[in-house]
Amino acid sequence: MAERFELVEKALVKMLEEKKYATLRDILITMNPADVAGLFSDLEDQKIPLLFRLLPKELAAETFVEMETDDQELLIKSFSDNELKEIVDELFVDDAAALVEEMPANVVKRILRQADPEMRKSINQILRYPENSAGSLMTTEYVSLRPHMTVEEAILRIRRQGVDKETIYTCYVTTGRVLMGIVTVKDLLLAESDEQTIEDIMLTSVISVHTHTDQEEVASMLAHYDFLALPVVDGENRMVGIVTFDDAIDVIQDEATEDMEIMGGMLPSEKTYLKNSVWELFRNRIPWLLLLMVSATFTGMIITSFEGALAAQAALTAFIPMLMGTGGNSGSQSSVTVIRALSLGELHFSDLPRVIWKEIRTAVICGLALAIVCFGKIWLVDRLLLGNPQITLVIDAVVCLALFVTVLLAKLVGAVLPLVAKAIGLDPAVMASPFITSIVDAVSLLVYFLFAKMFLPI
Amino acid sequence: MAERFELVEKALVKMLEEKKYATLRDILITMNPADVAGLFSDLEDQKIPLLFRLLPKELAAETFVEMETDDQELLIKSFSDNELKEIVDELFVDDAAALVEEMPANVVKRILRQADPEMRKSINQILRYPENSAGSLMTTEYVSLRPHMTVEEAILRIRRQGVDKETIYTCYVTTGRVLMGIVTVKDLLLAESDEQTIEDIMLTSVISVHTHTDQEEVASMLAHYDFLALPVVDGENRMVGIVTFDDAIDVIQDEATEDMEIMGGMLPSEKTYLKNSVWELFRNRIPWLLLLMVSATFTGMIITSFEGALAAQAALTAFIPMLMGTGGNSGSQSSVTVIRALSLGELHFSDLPRVIWKEIRTAVICGLALAIVCFGKIWLVDRLLLGNPQITLVIDAVVCLALFVTVLLAKLVGAVLPLVAKAIGLDPAVMASPFITSIVDAVSLLVYFLFAKMFLPI
Repeated sequence: MAERFELVEKALVKMLEEKKYATLRDILITMNPADVAGLFSDLEDQKIPLLFRLLPKELAAETFVEMETDDQELLIKSFSDNELKEIVDELFVDDAAALVEEMPANVVKRILRQADPEMRKSINQILRYPENSAGSLMTTEYVSLRPHMTVEEAILRIRRQGVDKETIYTCYVTTGRVLMGIVTVKDLLLAESDEQTIEDIMLTSVISVHTHTDQEEVASMLAHYDFLALPVVDGENRMVGIVTFDDAIDVIQDEATEDMEIMGGMLPSEKTYLKNSVWELFRNRIPWLLLLMVSATFTGMIITSFEGALAAQAALTAFIPMLMGTGGNSGSQSSVTVIRALSLGELHFSDLPRVIWKEIRTAVICGLALAIVCFGKIWLVDRLLLGNPQITLVIDAVVCLALFVTVLLAKLVGAVLPLVAKAIGLDPAVMASPFITSIVDAVSLLVYFLFAKMFLPI
Repeated sequence: MAERFELVEKALVKMLEEKKYATLRDILITMNPADVAGLFSDLEDQKIPLLFRLLPKELAAETFVEMETDDQELLIKSFSDNELKEIVDELFVDDAAALVEEMPANVVKRILRQADPEMRKSINQILRYPENSAGSLMTTEYVSLRPHMTVEEAILRIRRQGVDKETIYTCYVTTGRVLMGIVTVKDLLLAESDEQTIEDIMLTSVISVHTHTDQEEVASMLAHYDFLALPVVDGENRMVGIVTFDDAIDVIQDEATEDMEIMGGMLPSEKTYLKNSVWELFRNRIPWLLLLMVSATFTGMIITSFEGALAAQAALTAFIPMLMGTGGNSGSQSSVTVIRALSLGELHFSDLPRVIWKEIRTAVICGLALAIVCFGKIWLVDRLLLGNPQITLVIDAVVCLALFVTVLLAKLVGAVLPLVAKAIGLDPAVMASPFITSIVDAVSLLVYFLFAKMFLPI
C-alpha cells in the first residue's frame, strides 16, 4: 500500500517538473487531502508554493491542515495577505488554533490579522486553555438545538448551519447555554414523527468533560464510550465546545508514542523521526544517558569495595552481566506492564496491594524457574563443557540464590515505582526500563556480594 | 473522575446487596453501557446474573458487548436458551462475531443455535477471514444506496433500514454489489434539492481496504483520513462490509499495548493486567527471561577469557556495569524510536541509508558528550574524591574510548535491527531493549578489553 503510493508520488513530482500543470491538477482534485499533504513533505522547498497554488480553494485548505509544521510555515511566508486570508477562512476553528499554537510569533500575528473577527475570538478562547486540556483540543463549531424545537425544525436548523460545522451528527440541546441533552442525526432521521419535540427524544444523561480535563482522559473516554464527540463544559455546566473522535485518535497515538519515548529513556519529541534534526535527537537523548551514566558510579563503588572478594573468587566476575541483565529484564517487564495499565486506566494507586501480591507470586515462580535452569546451565556449560575449574557447587548455588532474590526485588521495584510515581503526580513512564535497570543493577550486585560473603571463603 | 466513579460503583453494589432492585434499575437505565459493564467486573460471580437480569433488553445487550470475556462466558452459561436468543438478536454482527471468536467451543455452539439464520450466515462469513484482518474486524451491517436514487429516496431508505445499522452516517453506493462511491448523511442533508440523484452528489474516489488487509493498516488509514468508517471490498471490488472508527480506536490501543509488551521482553497478552492470572503472567514473561539469561553465557565467557587482564588491572572491573548500561540505554533509545516510527508508517526499509547516517551523527555527538563527562567524572570522583589509586589517566582514557565506540555501535545496532526485522517479515518490536541490550553487552565488553589490551600493560 505505502510502497505503491510512493510510485504515484514520484509520477506526480515528475509532472510538476515537466510543467504539466493541467494534468497534475486534474489528478490532485481526485486525491484525499491527507495524501496530497504527503506529497509536499518530499518536495524541495522552492516547489512547495508552486504545487500548492495548483489546488482548488477548499482542497487547498484541507491539505494545508494535514501538512507538516515547517511546510506550513514556509507556505505562509510565501503567501500574499489575500491568499492567507482565503486559507484561514476555510479552516475549522480548532485547526486554526492548532496552527497558531505551532507557528512563530510573527507568523501568528499575520494569521490573526487575516482571520475574521469571530474566528479570531474563537482562536483566542481556545488558546487560553492550558496545553493538553480539553479546552485546547476542542472546536467551538457544533450544532446546538433548543428543547422545544420539533424534529423538523431541528433538521432545518442543521441544514442551515451544518455546512460550517466539523461534526453535525451529534447535536447538543442547550437552554441559556447550559447543556440539557444530546440528539443524534440518527435519532432525528428515525424519529416516529416530524412533530416530536427534541425534549421528547433527547438523551439527558450526557457524559461531558470540563475545559481543564486532560486530553489523555478525554481521548480514553471517547474510546471507552465509542462516541463521535464529547461535549466540553465550563464550571457552570455551560457548553463551550466539542472534542471530536479524530482528534481523540491523534491524542491516543501521540500519547502512546510519548510513553514509549519516555520508557526508552528519551525526552518526548513533537516531530517524526525523519523530521527531527541530529541536534534535536541529541538533545532528547543525552539527559537520561548522562544521568544514568553518572548514577552507575554507585555500581562501580560497590564493585570496588568488593575487589578483594572478586580477587579471591575470580569466577564471580563472569556472572555479573548475567545477574544484572536478568534483573533488569525482570524489572522492566513489570514496570512496562504497570505503566501501560495505568495509562489505559485499568489500574489505580488503590490497587497497590493487589499488584504487590500478584508480582510477588509471579516473581517467585519466574525466579525459581530461572534459578533452576541457571544452576544446571552453569554446571553443564561453564563447568563441564567449557571446563572452568574455578566454578564450585557453592559458587553455582550463590549465583542462583542471588538470581532468585534479584528477580524478586526487581519485579517488586518495577511494579511499585510507577504506581508511586502516579500517586505523587509524576509521569509513571519515567519509572521504566532505564531507571529501573539502574536501581536493579546496584541492588543485584549488593545481593550477590552479600551471599558470596556468607557462603564463600572471602 | 475514575476515583469519583468508584464511589458510585460501591453505592450500586450496596443496593444490590440490600435488594433495592427497583431503585437500582432506575439508576442503571440512566447509565452508559460501558459504565454498567464496569460494574460487573468488580462483582462476585454469583451476583452477576442477578444484576444483569435487572437491565432492560436493549441496555442488557449493549452492556453485554462491553463486558470482560470471562463475565460474558459466566452469563451465557447461566442463561436459558430464550434469554440467550434475546441477547444475541440485539447484538450487531461484528460484536456477535467477536463474541464467538472468544468463547469456548460448547458455548459457541449454543450461541450459533440461538442466532437467526441471517446473522449466523454473517457471523460465519466474518469468522472465515484471517485473524487480525479487515474481514474479521468488519461489520456487514451498512446502508447501501443505488446511483439513480434521489436524495429523498435515499433518506427514506436510511429511515427504513437505518435502525439496525451500526453506522448510518456514511452510505455506500453500489451497482451489482460493486462499490461505486460514497455519500454521507451530511451530503444528503445539505443537498441543494431533494430531487438530485445520488450519482450527482456521491464522491467517486473512494478509499477502501481489502478483506485481507491487516487490521493495523486499516486502523492507521482510518486515523490518517479521519473517516468514520472504511469500506471493505473483496478481490472483485465488491463491497462486503465496513470497519468503523470505534473498532479502529480499539485496534490502535491494542497494537500500542502489544508493541510495549514485546518491547518490554514479554509475550503479548489479550487480557488486562489484573485479569491475568499469576500463571499467565509467568508464561508471558519467562521465555524472554530464559533466553536472555542463557545468552548472557557469552558475556560470561568474554569476561572469563580476559580474567588475566582484570587481575592485572583490577580497576577495570568497576566500570563494566557503567559501560554495559550506557551502551544498552543508547541502543534502546534508537530501537524504540525506529520501532515506533515503523509502526506509525513514518519509516520504511528504503529509508535505511538515511537512518544510518542520522544515527551515526547523533551517536558521535552523544558519544563525545558522554566520553568527556565520563573522563572528568572518573578523574574527579573515582580518583580524587574516592581516592582510588589504581585509576590512571590511561585507564580513564581507555574507559572513555570504549564508551564512545560502544555508544556508536549500540545506536547503529539499535536502529538497523528493527528495520531489518521488518524487511524480512518479523515484528520489529522484538528487536527492542532486552534483545539489543544483550547484543550490546557482549559488544561493549569486547571493545573494552580490546582497548585495554592495546593501551595497558596486560
